[in-house]
Amino acid sequence: MDDLNCWLRLMAVPGLDVSKLVSLRPALSIAELCQASTFQLQQLGLTGAQSLHLQQSQKKADAAQHWLVSDSSHWFIPHTDPRYPPLLQQIRHPPLGLFGCGDPAVLCKPQIAIVGSRRPTPTGRQLALEFAAELATLGFVITSGLARGIDGAAHQGALRVQGQTIAVMGHGLCHLYPPQHQALQQQIIAQGAVLSEFLPQQHAKPEFFPIRNRIVVGLSLGTLVVEAAEKSGSLISAYYAADYNREVFAIPGSIRNPQAAGCHQLIQQGAKLTRSVADIIEELAPQLAADLFSNPVEKNSCLPHLSDEGLLANVGDEATATDLIADRAAMPVADVTIALQQLELAGAVAAVPGGYIRVRRA
Amino acid sequence: MDDLNCWLRLMAVPGLDVSKLVSLRPALSIAELCQASTFQLQQLGLTGAQSLHLQQSQKKADAAQHWLVSDSSHWFIPHTDPRYPPLLQQIRHPPLGLFGCGDPAVLCKPQIAIVGSRRPTPTGRQLALEFAAELATLGFVITSGLARGIDGAAHQGALRVQGQTIAVMGHGLCHLYPPQHQALQQQIIAQGAVLSEFLPQQHAKPEFFPIRNRIVVGLSLGTLVVEAAEKSGSLISAYYAADYNREVFAIPGSIRNPQAAGCHQLIQQGAKLTRSVADIIEELAPQLAADLFSNPVEKNSCLPHLSDEGLLANVGDEATATDLIADRAAMPVADVTIALQQLELAGAVAAVPGGYIRVRRA
Repeated sequence: MDDLNCWLRLMAVPGLDVSKLVSLRPALSIAELCQASTFQLQQLGLTGAQSLHLQQSQKKADAAQHWLVSDSSHWFIPHTDPRYPPLLQQIRHPPLGLFGCGDPAVLCKPQIAIVGSRRPTPTGRQLALEFAAELATLGFVITSGLARGIDGAAHQGALRVQGQTIAVMGHGLCHLYPPQHQALQQQIIAQGAVLSEFLPQQHAKPEFFPIRNRIVVGLSLGTLVVEAAEKSGSLISAYYAADYNREVFAIPGSIRNPQAAGCHQLIQQGAKLTRSVADIIEELAPQLAADLFSNPVEKNSCLPHLSDEGLLANVGDEATATDLIADRAAMPVADVTIALQQLELAGAVAAVPGGYIRVRRA
Repeated sequence: MDDLNCWLRLMAVPGLDVSKLVSLRPALSIAELCQASTFQLQQLGLTGAQSLHLQQSQKKADAAQHWLVSDSSHWFIPHTDPRYPPLLQQIRHPPLGLFGCGDPAVLCKPQIAIVGSRRPTPTGRQLALEFAAELATLGFVITSGLARGIDGAAHQGALRVQGQTIAVMGHGLCHLYPPQHQALQQQIIAQGAVLSEFLPQQHAKPEFFPIRNRIVVGLSLGTLVVEAAEKSGSLISAYYAADYNREVFAIPGSIRNPQAAGCHQLIQQGAKLTRSVADIIEELAPQLAADLFSNPVEKNSCLPHLSDEGLLANVGDEATATDLIADRAAMPVADVTIALQQLELAGAVAAVPGGYIRVRRA
């Protein structure tokens, strides 16, 4: 039995997340775990149902493996893989692994989650599009859940400006839900990734959607709630974000608009009232800067292109022209321009007449 | 020279507020102050211009006195008068005295300031009306500046439910501005008071309006900003409120509505996002309760009808019917009903089946 197959069998066990697995692992390797008896598994701390699921998981694992090899764009990343996003490792119950289609490298780029109502107002939908487009232009990946309404608009906003976007599904990747988002899903795969912690054959269940939300939020530096009614699933996402010490942003609306009530509730509870992308950047800047300075060369950083120590070293204490920085760094001017904008947002450089200067901390 | 005439002469001196006067008074009585030489006045700390204003103030004082005796509804309350509102005494620069028409007793009742744009949206105007009506029904006096837009709607909202309201003017009470609010002003005088710190003959000057705003805010337990553009005079009111440690409430709106931008800015700076009157009551309840318990019989309390120790004494530790409470207190049932609602808001009594019970603190 190879390791991949073991991982896939473990993925079939409901409620088996990283924290649970870590508590089992000192005793057994994952291969041994898959061959253990019911008695052994229960002694290790699995429930009866979990033990049964694991022991009956071979067929499901084979189907998942078949899906994986059926298309070169399909992948599976267990939590031990260096490509597994570090921000997701930090949450309370990180998924054991992620199934995906598209570019797995996008997982480790800086992400903003944009979530909200399935039945937004036309203004809400438009705001989701605009915020996503503007954030994607700044280099953020837009992460959401591919649901109708705000989620779909957020993905579309990123795609419209050739930005990157991630859709996290509440079911296996063999299936498509909602059906009207088939074309959108294909575009997301082409410009980002669609992913799920569920086995590819797994059908949607209502209880999977809130579980899925924790991944959307867990991947992201911050979560923007565009419109949400008073008792909305989007509020669950916001509570996850607060639980993970991630920023929560909420767009206000008229108190006459029931789709703004959830956002107002969040703002009263401490979410940042958000009028523009600048409000988001302002809040995240210290975090982006801290990451930049504390992990300048860390390979598995969640901010890889903000952590370009090489580029930063080419910016002087006196005004340095963008062309010169690009020349020194041996990088295309276009890439350097974007990277410098990000470094500026992160507070590492400042735009001055004649180019950029390095900002040094006291 | 009588004391009233001295006060009126002092009222003619620009920039002479209570704190300034208090710094002068140990040396001279107000009568001596009015007869002092330029040299003496400047030695005491008045500027040259202030000294000149005081020495040339007799004509203005006579005109003010003429206005005072011309109508029995006109009054002047110097800051030493027990009718001077204690909350206003607490601000940084309390006015030396207040000219008014209407019922001066309203000054010491619990007030909420409602302020905002002169050019609100129709929804903003409607919200000002509704919040004012609901707060007035609960027994709060609605205080504002009689300006076009939100101010006017706030006064109207209070009047519509036979509530009380105070208009603070940025000019003397001989004049009327804005002209379209003439009828409204008469209604306010009949159901509350119109007041000003300016001598009755004083014409409006643009710089008087922000100065006036400090009185609107200073009289009130909290200030509600309904709609305000980014650089609005209403923000000045909110900053006064924050400076005086008074609560600031702001109603959010669509980020597409420029008249909501000022409110959003205030919320970002710590004002309470306000969706309903309940949000206001929730924030003020501890303060109302504290006042109730710390000054139960203080005559000059700003919460006189909440401080009705007599009424409170008639509420038992077991359910007491409203009729019985009214009977015990020898008060009309209607008055007792309102007073009990206020005591409930303040956390002093609780509504239970069969009437009210006394809430006692640990």
